[in-house]
Amino acid sequence: MKNIYLLGCTGSIGKQTIDVLRTLENVNLISISFANQKEEAKKIIEEFKPKYVSCLKEEDANELKELYPFIEVGYGMEGLVNAATFNSFDKDGYLVNAVVGMIGLKPTIEAIKIGRNILLANKETLVVGGEIIRNLMKEHNVMMLPIDSEHSAILQCLDGRKKEEIKELIITASGGAFRDKTRNELKDVTIEDALAHPNWSMGKKITVDCATMVNKGLEVIEAHYLFDIPYENIKTIVHRESIIHSMVKFVDGSLIAQMGKPDMRIPIQYAITYPYKEEYKLDSALDIDEISNLSFKKMDFERYPMLALAYEVGKMGGIMPTVYNSSNEASVRLFIENKIKFLEIENIISEYVEKYKESNILNPSLEDVLRIDNEVKESIYKKYL
Amino acid sequence: MKNIYLLGCTGSIGKQTIDVLRTLENVNLISISFANQKEEAKKIIEEFKPKYVSCLKEEDANELKELYPFIEVGYGMEGLVNAATFNSFDKDGYLVNAVVGMIGLKPTIEAIKIGRNILLANKETLVVGGEIIRNLMKEHNVMMLPIDSEHSAILQCLDGRKKEEIKELIITASGGAFRDKTRNELKDVTIEDALAHPNWSMGKKITVDCATMVNKGLEVIEAHYLFDIPYENIKTIVHRESIIHSMVKFVDGSLIAQMGKPDMRIPIQYAITYPYKEEYKLDSALDIDEISNLSFKKMDFERYPMLALAYEVGKMGGIMPTVYNSSNEASVRLFIENKIKFLEIENIISEYVEKYKESNILNPSLEDVLRIDNEVKESIYKKYL
Repeated sequence: MKNIYLLGCTGSIGKQTIDVLRTLENVNLISISFANQKEEAKKIIEEFKPKYVSCLKEEDANELKELYPFIEVGYGMEGLVNAATFNSFDKDGYLVNAVVGMIGLKPTIEAIKIGRNILLANKETLVVGGEIIRNLMKEHNVMMLPIDSEHSAILQCLDGRKKEEIKELIITASGGAFRDKTRNELKDVTIEDALAHPNWSMGKKITVDCATMVNKGLEVIEAHYLFDIPYENIKTIVHRESIIHSMVKFVDGSLIAQMGKPDMRIPIQYAITYPYKEEYKLDSALDIDEISNLSFKKMDFERYPMLALAYEVGKMGGIMPTVYNSSNEASVRLFIENKIKFLEIENIISEYVEKYKESNILNPSLEDVLRIDNEVKESIYKKYL
Repeated sequence: MKNIYLLGCTGSIGKQTIDVLRTLENVNLISISFANQKEEAKKIIEEFKPKYVSCLKEEDANELKELYPFIEVGYGMEGLVNAATFNSFDKDGYLVNAVVGMIGLKPTIEAIKIGRNILLANKETLVVGGEIIRNLMKEHNVMMLPIDSEHSAILQCLDGRKKEEIKELIITASGGAFRDKTRNELKDVTIEDALAHPNWSMGKKITVDCATMVNKGLEVIEAHYLFDIPYENIKTIVHRESIIHSMVKFVDGSLIAQMGKPDMRIPIQYAITYPYKEEYKLDSALDIDEISNLSFKKMDFERYPMLALAYEVGKMGGIMPTVYNSSNEASVRLFIENKIKFLEIENIISEYVEKYKESNILNPSLEDVLRIDNEVKESIYKKYL
């Protein structure tokens, strides 16, 4: 019996995790957190009867306490950490971190400290906290499994292979909503344009991140920390169809690729049932007879400067991935709220990376990361709001 | 240290095995066999100094004995079996069976009986002796690893997964030399036309087998015995580029594919270094940036009736795969010698399968298999030679 502690249960990944949990046996949902979608959360509470629920606002927490007197309720960051670490003695506990943005960092760290395994959908956590988390995981002998389709693909391709056998991780990228536009044509694109992702149905932030290719940049940094592979050996390639989710090239001249429908519930299920593959009940599987072509295109770093910048900040390490991520989070929020234009996202990220790069902090503490995140975001909001 | 016993050292797979052995450390070549290419064999003897050499003809054996007095020499079927079972106490012995056609059956069986692991390039062995070999392997606790690129791909995709996790094996087929011809256009094709395989450089017999798709049929039967998967769950698909060598579809909605250059030395090396992947030194690895498209086409069983027939004889079991294989071996020989036309290969195979199907022998003994093989071939040669 595996026990699931699910942060972000009403978001895109959270909802799909709920779909998967419905079909699996031997899995319990013990705690959940949500931000604002109270009605959605109530349905989950009534169906799964978790023991702990956390929400963003105190008033919602009070309402839930009254409605469900037998459930423990919390709110804010404290509630989020409690949801992540509830039942600290549970040795079959798996934290599904499906919140959006780096708010997932602290609860993940606290969960690792009590020896809980992490199923990670929230890549920002690993991007900003990579070094801290890597050390803590060793100390507490904790396993981290990816939910991201690309990293789940890599995990499946590696399947127990040793590091000496790996030559290269090859992360595929659909190219995002604007893949057929030149940089010049990007000037006046709107948030509505950006949200029309060709293959995947995802949350707003990540869909914008796909269009800027920041998402792929975050994934490169995530892969670096998850699989402990140098940036030089992590490659990206454009694969429009999103059927091959990633590949691993081995020293013996073989490549192993993982394929499937673009359906996040497949990697979610694999993370939960790991190391076993169980029958997928939510949809029919990919029918190879219905595929006529898989295309590949060399990654164009001039077209996607944010991806090139991700490699740079990744190699710099320290707080630079945080600066990259925080300036992205802030500027994507501004773009979603129609406060800035699409290409300004890139300008803001580049500007802040440039600004912090001379004063990088190596081996940052959690406090350093949180302080820099706050500093960067405040500064951007002050300027543009 | 692994010890290699190599049958068929001067054939296409044999020579490529020699190429690979040259680059690997911790591997010894202990015995070799060859048929007619004496000069080629002498070079191998002088370079690798094997302890046992077998050839086809007694006169060649006598010459070799004189030339290399410190090497044991044999000939004919007895020599072939001796080469396969030399050093019967050797517990790190691997028999590479790279002979062409079902002549490889008996030496393989004898090698299994002394507990030698088998690296199988000679698919006919498993097609005709599948049931016998499967039982013997269990009894002697012996491992059989494929050298065929498709089966090596499947082995790599499975990588330790349990049978319950597998939904389907998907074997890719280039389509062979005549893939762009209609059946009508096949009437007057010659052996020269057939030998121009678009992707792979292989021996004559197998290149013709690719054109008739008998090769894929033999591979389906081979896969059935190697991986113990029912025929219903072994699928074939046309993939012109021969980059994806095969795939496995799992119950969780994931497919894993193995890719690489169409270079037999890669699966040969993997079989030898199994379960580890070692640096491939004979060529640069596949560069994914140089691939723009991978195409797939549903298998057309009307275009390739011999593949449909392979599934049929496979499901019938008993001696029917032998009838299929023997009638193919005989008719391909006739086609290579310009005695029959290309489409007659299909007619002959179909005729003999039809003829034997009412008198199938289930759970045949080795003697049954050898007798039927002889009977079928004699009958065909009598008719056409």
